[in-house]
Amino acid sequence: MNDIGLLGLGVMGQSLALNIANKGYNVSVFNITSDLTRTFMETRAKDRNIFPFYDIKSFVESLSKPRKIFLMIVAGQPVDEMIQKLIPYLDKGDLIIDGGNSYYKDTTRRLKELKEKGILYLGVGVSGGESGALNGPSLMPGGTIEAYDLVKDILLKISAQTESGPCCAYVGNDSAGHFVKMLHNGIEYGMMQAISEVYDILRKVLKLSTNEIAEIFEEWNRGELNSFLIEISHKLMRHIDKSTGKPTLELILDKAGQKGTGKWTAEAALELGIPTPSLNAAVEGRIITFFKEDRTKLSRKIQKKYPDLTLDKEKIIEELKNALLFSNFILFSQGLWLMSEASKVYGYNIRISDVLKIWKGGCIIRAKMLDFYREIVDEKDDNSNLLNNEKSIKFLMEKIESVKYITNVAREYYIPMLIHNTALDYFLSMTEENLPANLIQAQRDFFGAHTYSRIDMEGTFHTIWE
Amino acid sequence: MNDIGLLGLGVMGQSLALNIANKGYNVSVFNITSDLTRTFMETRAKDRNIFPFYDIKSFVESLSKPRKIFLMIVAGQPVDEMIQKLIPYLDKGDLIIDGGNSYYKDTTRRLKELKEKGILYLGVGVSGGESGALNGPSLMPGGTIEAYDLVKDILLKISAQTESGPCCAYVGNDSAGHFVKMLHNGIEYGMMQAISEVYDILRKVLKLSTNEIAEIFEEWNRGELNSFLIEISHKLMRHIDKSTGKPTLELILDKAGQKGTGKWTAEAALELGIPTPSLNAAVEGRIITFFKEDRTKLSRKIQKKYPDLTLDKEKIIEELKNALLFSNFILFSQGLWLMSEASKVYGYNIRISDVLKIWKGGCIIRAKMLDFYREIVDEKDDNSNLLNNEKSIKFLMEKIESVKYITNVAREYYIPMLIHNTALDYFLSMTEENLPANLIQAQRDFFGAHTYSRIDMEGTFHTIWE
Repeated sequence: MNDIGLLGLGVMGQSLALNIANKGYNVSVFNITSDLTRTFMETRAKDRNIFPFYDIKSFVESLSKPRKIFLMIVAGQPVDEMIQKLIPYLDKGDLIIDGGNSYYKDTTRRLKELKEKGILYLGVGVSGGESGALNGPSLMPGGTIEAYDLVKDILLKISAQTESGPCCAYVGNDSAGHFVKMLHNGIEYGMMQAISEVYDILRKVLKLSTNEIAEIFEEWNRGELNSFLIEISHKLMRHIDKSTGKPTLELILDKAGQKGTGKWTAEAALELGIPTPSLNAAVEGRIITFFKEDRTKLSRKIQKKYPDLTLDKEKIIEELKNALLFSNFILFSQGLWLMSEASKVYGYNIRISDVLKIWKGGCIIRAKMLDFYREIVDEKDDNSNLLNNEKSIKFLMEKIESVKYITNVAREYYIPMLIHNTALDYFLSMTEENLPANLIQAQRDFFGAHTYSRIDMEGTFHTIWE
Repeated sequence: MNDIGLLGLGVMGQSLALNIANKGYNVSVFNITSDLTRTFMETRAKDRNIFPFYDIKSFVESLSKPRKIFLMIVAGQPVDEMIQKLIPYLDKGDLIIDGGNSYYKDTTRRLKELKEKGILYLGVGVSGGESGALNGPSLMPGGTIEAYDLVKDILLKISAQTESGPCCAYVGNDSAGHFVKMLHNGIEYGMMQAISEVYDILRKVLKLSTNEIAEIFEEWNRGELNSFLIEISHKLMRHIDKSTGKPTLELILDKAGQKGTGKWTAEAALELGIPTPSLNAAVEGRIITFFKEDRTKLSRKIQKKYPDLTLDKEKIIEELKNALLFSNFILFSQGLWLMSEASKVYGYNIRISDVLKIWKGGCIIRAKMLDFYREIVDEKDDNSNLLNNEKSIKFLMEKIESVKYITNVAREYYIPMLIHNTALDYFLSMTEENLPANLIQAQRDFFGAHTYSRIDMEGTFHTIWE
């Protein structure tokens, strides 16, 4: 009998199967189309302790009880369909693990449905792409602790390993795993957009070549900005297109795709009433890139007047570094606040400190700065808002002039910086005792009799304004 | 037999009943709690052609066929419950009109359910608050044209009247009326937030008194910025609190409430994939105001260093005016683009020009500038994007330096301007042929094999980056 079953042999599924087998486990594999299974067995899975099955019944029956089945299939309807196909062959106490990017509300529903049948279910966020899945992903398992305990050993072994330990820990109840993975992706959108804004200034204001920009990113990657996204940025900037001899990056169309997790993050924030303007701006930013034809047409109608500025290259590069550190901090603080609120509202009981540890390796948003964020989180009993710490304020206030400077330069060159501008405005708003919302509330009371509170006495008031 | 029934005698319902009666129609009224009906009949409805009923059956039977029943009750569950209570007494061809702020997806569902029973249904957006409902609201009716024709005469007569005609026209199929009303509110959130940002600069940078600010707004209201929101702003700024002798505005707590339509707008934009960063920022801005305690605590930790600037008061006031004109234009352009997309996707078949005419009077976002927007819309066959017009670009480019200047000054004084900053970034993004999204897409291809398009050849590409 094999230790675990892996269902779905796409890029991620294959890599995960190999990873598990490499750790000494016997893995049964199954894919809806048998051809893929055969090819996999003849190539990457050859001579490994990986065992192919061509029908669901024998796949399930090959597993030792309680059975553990890892689904690595497309999120959405396919997951529901596959669960229905598996159910007839499963016994009480068997475990299904969903490793796809499932919508957290679907996971909550499936957990409930399967619980009624006595079948265990884990929603596991898996980050790191193909290479992560093969060599050590970041794993965010959520569900019951009983279910987690069944596969804990396997998950810990296959996850990425860092100085701080394995990049896997029980994240929380219910759909906590998929919620945390969604937020990981929401922050990822923001970090990528922030990097692209900085890249835009380097190429359009300082007029640096792609290769020169790669050098700057490489240098940054040796310091505080050290992170997977900065690392792959400089690597990909070095890639030369064979057909033209130019850097491949320069030949790529400026349309950024998306698969929904960023949008879900923005929707969850709206639903839970937590302000995440920069996470949202990243989604807006990607949507705008989609309208290439409109942008091109409109750009022809604009007469840009560039300023006659003497630019200090070294200063701008230094300010950009600070601006990135600032915006990254704000992105995480918005994301973690939302996570904390979801944890309360949905009863996830997430340990944010553990999540930051999991994210330290294997995943797309891994970064040196996570240690700093974790230090801040660990200092407080109520760690819902990263801003609420002396160190945070010091860190951000040291960089605020850089952000002002850079966003100002950007505007002189007609360069939008949605992430940096919203990050700065968010910080200014959250540290401002007196916002001008007294006027908004007065207007609401004027036209809609919505009432208001006062600063000098308790109660609810309404004025007949005229 | 009476001409129309009005169900729900809250502030809006009472005003609308009086408005309809004033136009010469006999109105039957009903309210769930009879006390409210009695009080209404003894006070505001006294000696009018308004007839009270204390049970649903006699209320419905008092109406001439086909019956027309205007619901003015709380949106959501109560509407469904009331419809269920009405159904037993209705005949085929009778009409229910929902004048509340119903969620457009609920309206779509109700239309379908009632169609199966042969009952007509209209979802009507009603804007203008209590005073608008009484003296002439802006009405946005959506549903079948057959249903609209039954009440067309009444709706046209009770709506606000402007030089451009009555502020009512058939908006479109299905839930078009409530979708348009939702968008009206989404834009309203943005305009209110934009005004509050300008107010913040006037009080914190120029250190003007509330009364001095009122004078500026009064002056603005005589020019291009003429609008309901500017008008009520200067009026409410003049209001003095009796107990303290201070302007009432200064005593109002800076927490702005919301009832959901702004959030729905942001969600609809995410769902339809239309970029509306400034409409979203208005919702985010309001959410942030909610966290007064956090803001107060954090504000104590910040050391603000103000610049030693010589400020030209007249210049700043002039630039602020331009900035408001700029941001208002962008808010409408984002909102109308979203409306246009919804019209296609949901088959509403909305005439945007008509909507702008409806919004010209009676409603909260009425403004002189709507004539300019309508002029732009009328010039184009494809009017989905207001930006796509020479006049628009000229108008905005004349003001772009003002926005840059003002947002820059604001930052020196630690004043957030989410609306103005996102409006500027939106404009810069939508008029930029080459955004840095090539880097984002390259990163996506690097870690997730998401592929990319090229600028120099057709097809979909994937690179093995290292």
